[in-house]
Amino acid sequence: MKLELMRMLQDRKDEMIEIRRYLHEHPELSFQEEKTAQYIEDFYKGKDVEVQTNVGNGYGIIVTIKGGKPGDTIGLRADFDALPIVEETDVPFKSKNEGVMHACGHDAHTAYMLILADCLIQLKEQIPGTIKIIHQHAEETPPGGAKSIVESGILDDLNAVYGVHVFPTDPVGVIGYRSGYAMAGRTYFKLVIQGSGGHGSSPHLANDSIVAGSHFVTAVQTVVSRRLDPFEVGVVTIGSFDGKGAFNVIKDSVTLEGDVRYMATETQEKIDKEIHRIVGGIEAEFGVKCELTYTPDYPPLYNDPKITEAVVASLESMNDPDIKDVIEFPKFSGSEDFSYYAAKIPGTFFYIGCKPKGVEQAYFNHHPKFDIDEDSLLVAAKAVGQVVCDYYALD
Amino acid sequence: MKLELMRMLQDRKDEMIEIRRYLHEHPELSFQEEKTAQYIEDFYKGKDVEVQTNVGNGYGIIVTIKGGKPGDTIGLRADFDALPIVEETDVPFKSKNEGVMHACGHDAHTAYMLILADCLIQLKEQIPGTIKIIHQHAEETPPGGAKSIVESGILDDLNAVYGVHVFPTDPVGVIGYRSGYAMAGRTYFKLVIQGSGGHGSSPHLANDSIVAGSHFVTAVQTVVSRRLDPFEVGVVTIGSFDGKGAFNVIKDSVTLEGDVRYMATETQEKIDKEIHRIVGGIEAEFGVKCELTYTPDYPPLYNDPKITEAVVASLESMNDPDIKDVIEFPKFSGSEDFSYYAAKIPGTFFYIGCKPKGVEQAYFNHHPKFDIDEDSLLVAAKAVGQVVCDYYALD
Amino acid sequence: MKLELMRMLQDRKDEMIEIRRYLHEHPELSFQEEKTAQYIEDFYKGKDVEVQTNVGNGYGIIVTIKGGKPGDTIGLRADFDALPIVEETDVPFKSKNEGVMHACGHDAHTAYMLILADCLIQLKEQIPGTIKIIHQHAEETPPGGAKSIVESGILDDLNAVYGVHVFPTDPVGVIGYRSGYAMAGRTYFKLVIQGSGGHGSSPHLANDSIVAGSHFVTAVQTVVSRRLDPFEVGVVTIGSFDGKGAFNVIKDSVTLEGDVRYMATETQEKIDKEIHRIVGGIEAEFGVKCELTYTPDYPPLYNDPKITEAVVASLESMNDPDIKDVIEFPKFSGSEDFSYYAAKIPGTFFYIGCKPKGVEQAYFNHHPKFDIDEDSLLVAAKAVGQVVCDYYALD
Amino acid sequence: MKLELMRMLQDRKDEMIEIRRYLHEHPELSFQEEKTAQYIEDFYKGKDVEVQTNVGNGYGIIVTIKGGKPGDTIGLRADFDALPIVEETDVPFKSKNEGVMHACGHDAHTAYMLILADCLIQLKEQIPGTIKIIHQHAEETPPGGAKSIVESGILDDLNAVYGVHVFPTDPVGVIGYRSGYAMAGRTYFKLVIQGSGGHGSSPHLANDSIVAGSHFVTAVQTVVSRRLDPFEVGVVTIGSFDGKGAFNVIKDSVTLEGDVRYMATETQEKIDKEIHRIVGGIEAEFGVKCELTYTPDYPPLYNDPKITEAVVASLESMNDPDIKDVIEFPKFSGSEDFSYYAAKIPGTFFYIGCKPKGVEQAYFNHHPKFDIDEDSLLVAAKAVGQVVCDYYALD
Repeated sequence: MKLELMRMLQDRKDEMIEIRRYLHEHPELSFQEEKTAQYIEDFYKGKDVEVQTNVGNGYGIIVTIKGGKPGDTIGLRADFDALPIVEETDVPFKSKNEGVMHACGHDAHTAYMLILADCLIQLKEQIPGTIKIIHQHAEETPPGGAKSIVESGILDDLNAVYGVHVFPTDPVGVIGYRSGYAMAGRTYFKLVIQGSGGHGSSPHLANDSIVAGSHFVTAVQTVVSRRLDPFEVGVVTIGSFDGKGAFNVIKDSVTLEGDVRYMATETQEKIDKEIHRIVGGIEAEFGVKCELTYTPDYPPLYNDPKITEAVVASLESMNDPDIKDVIEFPKFSGSEDFSYYAAKIPGTFFYIGCKPKGVEQAYFNHHPKFDIDEDSLLVAAKAVGQVVCDYYALD
Repeated sequence: MKLELMRMLQDRKDEMIEIRRYLHEHPELSFQEEKTAQYIEDFYKGKDVEVQTNVGNGYGIIVTIKGGKPGDTIGLRADFDALPIVEETDVPFKSKNEGVMHACGHDAHTAYMLILADCLIQLKEQIPGTIKIIHQHAEETPPGGAKSIVESGILDDLNAVYGVHVFPTDPVGVIGYRSGYAMAGRTYFKLVIQGSGGHGSSPHLANDSIVAGSHFVTAVQTVVSRRLDPFEVGVVTIGSFDGKGAFNVIKDSVTLEGDVRYMATETQEKIDKEIHRIVGGIEAEFGVKCELTYTPDYPPLYNDPKITEAVVASLESMNDPDIKDVIEFPKFSGSEDFSYYAAKIPGTFFYIGCKPKGVEQAYFNHHPKFDIDEDSLLVAAKAVGQVVCDYYALD
Repeated sequence: MKLELMRMLQDRKDEMIEIRRYLHEHPELSFQEEKTAQYIEDFYKGKDVEVQTNVGNGYGIIVTIKGGKPGDTIGLRADFDALPIVEETDVPFKSKNEGVMHACGHDAHTAYMLILADCLIQLKEQIPGTIKIIHQHAEETPPGGAKSIVESGILDDLNAVYGVHVFPTDPVGVIGYRSGYAMAGRTYFKLVIQGSGGHGSSPHLANDSIVAGSHFVTAVQTVVSRRLDPFEVGVVTIGSFDGKGAFNVIKDSVTLEGDVRYMATETQEKIDKEIHRIVGGIEAEFGVKCELTYTPDYPPLYNDPKITEAVVASLESMNDPDIKDVIEFPKFSGSEDFSYYAAKIPGTFFYIGCKPKGVEQAYFNHHPKFDIDEDSLLVAAKAVGQVVCDYYALD
Repeated sequence: MKLELMRMLQDRKDEMIEIRRYLHEHPELSFQEEKTAQYIEDFYKGKDVEVQTNVGNGYGIIVTIKGGKPGDTIGLRADFDALPIVEETDVPFKSKNEGVMHACGHDAHTAYMLILADCLIQLKEQIPGTIKIIHQHAEETPPGGAKSIVESGILDDLNAVYGVHVFPTDPVGVIGYRSGYAMAGRTYFKLVIQGSGGHGSSPHLANDSIVAGSHFVTAVQTVVSRRLDPFEVGVVTIGSFDGKGAFNVIKDSVTLEGDVRYMATETQEKIDKEIHRIVGGIEAEFGVKCELTYTPDYPPLYNDPKITEAVVASLESMNDPDIKDVIEFPKFSGSEDFSYYAAKIPGTFFYIGCKPKGVEQAYFNHHPKFDIDEDSLLVAAKAVGQVVCDYYALD
């Protein structure tokens, strides 16, 4: 079946590009992807599959392709939301939704996935199992769509899950992978320190919240410098110290907001515990009242080593001139809510080189001039198709 | 002449009160006292004195009473501006200028001074010297009026200068004094710390200004704790730490504003030097750029010991049932721009009890319900009159 | 009786000096004053008084002079211990006890007091009350002798207590006083911070006590800078940070020792509370175990205002050419265990000028070259004698 | 030649063990390995090689095996010093030099190397190039022996260099490798902060070095927390804060000592720069004088990727039952002065499993009970022999 699938994908390369351009022209923000979802739903109309819409906390769509024989269930995920960015490219299919842009390539993800799904539907009698296409909304904005889709239970029967992301650091034909922890988890926190105000000349009648807040900032540095294993990756940033007031009045209260990053769940838990501890210490030390809101967003992405190894073996075995190189990628400090699937189901998330031809250094994801080489769509489709075939041991 | 003066003042007590009530009803903010200045100017119309208006950086008025004989020149100062406070008293002569209030008693100062001046004008042939009445604008708002009046040179010939303030902690009849440093000097400062911004997950590509700012706050505590003599009085307050930003973006720049207080010029200089030093240290330590604006407002008030001793002796020798007690007052951390006169001319500034009768605890100066016992006007007039007579050794 | 007493004292001036020189030659350290105490005991042999020895926690001696008539009981205190200092003066009666020196003038205190006591014994029939001479051991070394003498109950019947100290800043004839808080109280503290050790390359497996200790030092600065009234006097010094270890081993434990000073009991209590609070905060913040030993030594010396006023009046009324000036002294940051008496019994402690003649700047107390003008002994005796007479209204 | 070599090594397994036991019984400390060096020199006596002794800053020995044909020169390094540890094992060949122990396996390194060298000497006619055996002294104690040997120029002609270390985490037969940065570099630093002393009650007359030192400790945390890439490995430990003094005396000077670790030269340079910057900042901020001694010990170990890849390929191609598995090892925070060779010559350092049989968890290197499975000697000899043969493409 493999060869058949590859030939079908090759034939529909232009169609992928067409879909991608249409989506690029009509981007929608996270949780507001009404028309995009409708477009996807319409695509599947009349096809022999089950389509579930409004899955999770938004416009999520699950398409279930039941194979001709019994067997494992696997999931293929493509996200479809866009970003609040004013597009600055010159492409003819530039965003028509001013201020919204597919600057992260989710248009490409959806485009290749629709064609791949269609092909798999046509070939489904040969498949010994079930494939669930996960068209996911709202990847860009926490709490994201993935978490709610997982929690809905609709993926409880999955034996494996796969996802890809176009990546402009490498040219078309390069596929990147990373086993184990691969992308960062993130936590948002807010700390309100309540002291008591007073006249600048009478510190003893007040309780200076700026001093307490500054000691918190100083002390929290030790979480990364002294509490983590040097080989562990963690970041604690205080991005906001809101203590604006009159110069001659002791500030009664300050609000700090911060961002925590980590590449492993153990690190997440360690930092969580330490920050709570320090907050308790500041409270005792300065006699202030602290209110800490501590909200993990996306967990770190953990690519199952066995699944990843199998994917690498699959891709390396491809005798296709379009697949030029399969390389290990470094860890990234960015976050991705595919991690919610991978935290529950053995899975892996890999990278599809999409660097535009003739460009020395491409604009990165989220840049207003972000662009892709559209040949990457076919690469993505073939690569994921290959992985599916090999999963089911289909020649 | 002393008895004659006292009798004249006693007779015009009601007139003082009337003037005070008129001024109270028509308060004007610092540097905007146009009508108040006109009222004062009008008062002196037709009297045998020289009146100079628009002295200094505002509506200051200097009235020169030339005595019948040659001799020393002394200054008597009364300020006349009001505060941006919504009056909350029930007095029938409540402020008609909504949002502006004579909540610091400058109406009382001006009222007693006009009558005292008028009496001195009538008696001037007996005076062996010259008396300059300093009707000062803008005491409440730095840079204040006093500094500019001193700098104008108009008081260069003064041998001594006196001023009083009504004070509601003590009842009418109590007069407070303090030799040496008596009220605090104050400096305003603003520190802009410029680092460089960046993504919260990549601290190495940014330079975190919140961390640098917090270290400044922590380090600046040592100025008071380690650099001052324990018997020295100084305060450094950071009233504002303006570092509001996005939680996941490293803040490029923060602005801190602070308030410094001191009871002596040496302390002022020491703190000035130390804060500049710490700012330089933070710059080097964190590789940030610091811009420090350091603006002393009013210097500490230094009451000349000899002049103060003479005033105390004068007041204690009064055999007047209105003058009940002369007591030493503690130092105050508040500021007063009379300090500019006293820094150049030997002088003293003393306090006239004005606590309303039947009240347990009076509202303090600057409170929307601040009120005075109007009997204090006569006390002020008599006390200053006595000081003047004794200065010239007039019985 | 006053004149009689003064004449007697004048006649025995040489004897005072002789005693002082003997004591100076034979100094003994705090709590080891065996021979000095024996000398004093011998002095009173055969006199009609009650002598109690070994009072309190050392060689304290209380001599009770019962007057001829009933009345109040007052205490006169003189201390008699010396210091571990190698004397560097050239006086012929230089210390024969190498390494021990009467460098604080306690020899002078004891010498004048013995003669004064003897005179009072001779005149006792005229005294309407009882006088207790307090020969106190161990003033120089906490916990000192005063506390234990007070706690013994032997002074429970005192109505007033007096003490003096020779002071080389002023010449003989000048007597200094200060009402209210006059000398500093002091607290010693020790803080052991227990983290856990480990290899320098693995901070996550250890808990760095040096980091916790440094944060304590930084945080404790805020006690003085933010918790005290700017007009309040307080010092917190960390004199010892014992964290010596191997450069590549994370230190498991550090020991800090500190010194706290204050001029009022309220300040003492405030600082005590704050340091305990900060220690608790550090414990919570860094997950270390803190052991705090907090030992107040001497309380601040509080001179009763009424008693002080009476003493000043007494001294000022003296028509004696030896008593030249009675002046107010500033507060001192040094400590003196007379404060234990004054904390329980209304009392005052005043200063006797003893600056050697012909000297520009005298060596201060505790200096190896400290020396006194011996005429000060007679001044002390007369001054205290005058105070006693006036207390009992004896002409 | 490969088979021949392997057979020879196999035959001399007992001899290796014998040598190792002799060396284990006679350990010598770094820079004092006189007898060990003599033993090695004696071993080569009468063999057809050039032996250079006293190479570098100690007892280093270079043995040059000139092959029968021209070609590349490669180095094989084995270290031979022991540690100041009291041995606690029960082996019959326990250290006879009380307090010194081969607790890091250098006895094993030297034993296998001597036999391997001897075999290579016998086979040298077949070798197209030159092999230099590097018997290195003083690996355990900075500055170590490697640096001086490299600097001597004696290895300037090397095209590649290899070394191994026995490692008790894995059983005999497992060989570990790591490409790129593999072991940490280390820097020692000492910071003397000179303020000025004074009495604890008078901070204004002193300059508190403990406060400045504590601010340094606090500020230096930001190097790791804010200046490094989260994916970068770095540690800054202050292991010693020597500020012991009298509790009531302000400390004039403190001495801090610290340990810096890093896994890359760029990190080393970054931390170096930052610590110097912070020291400059503390100097300015607190007006103290800082003297910083900053001494890099061993650089991070960088295994050349190509050389490492070739070694892995060599080892994986071995069809020898003794070589069971070749696995990637994690990075280690320990240091090794092989890094000096690898910094100049392309090379790699790999690990030979030596976990004693029947032991759950072996004692680690530097433990008084450290022990090895002696079968690991033959594995080391064969592995390095294989690498040599493959380097010269000898079948």
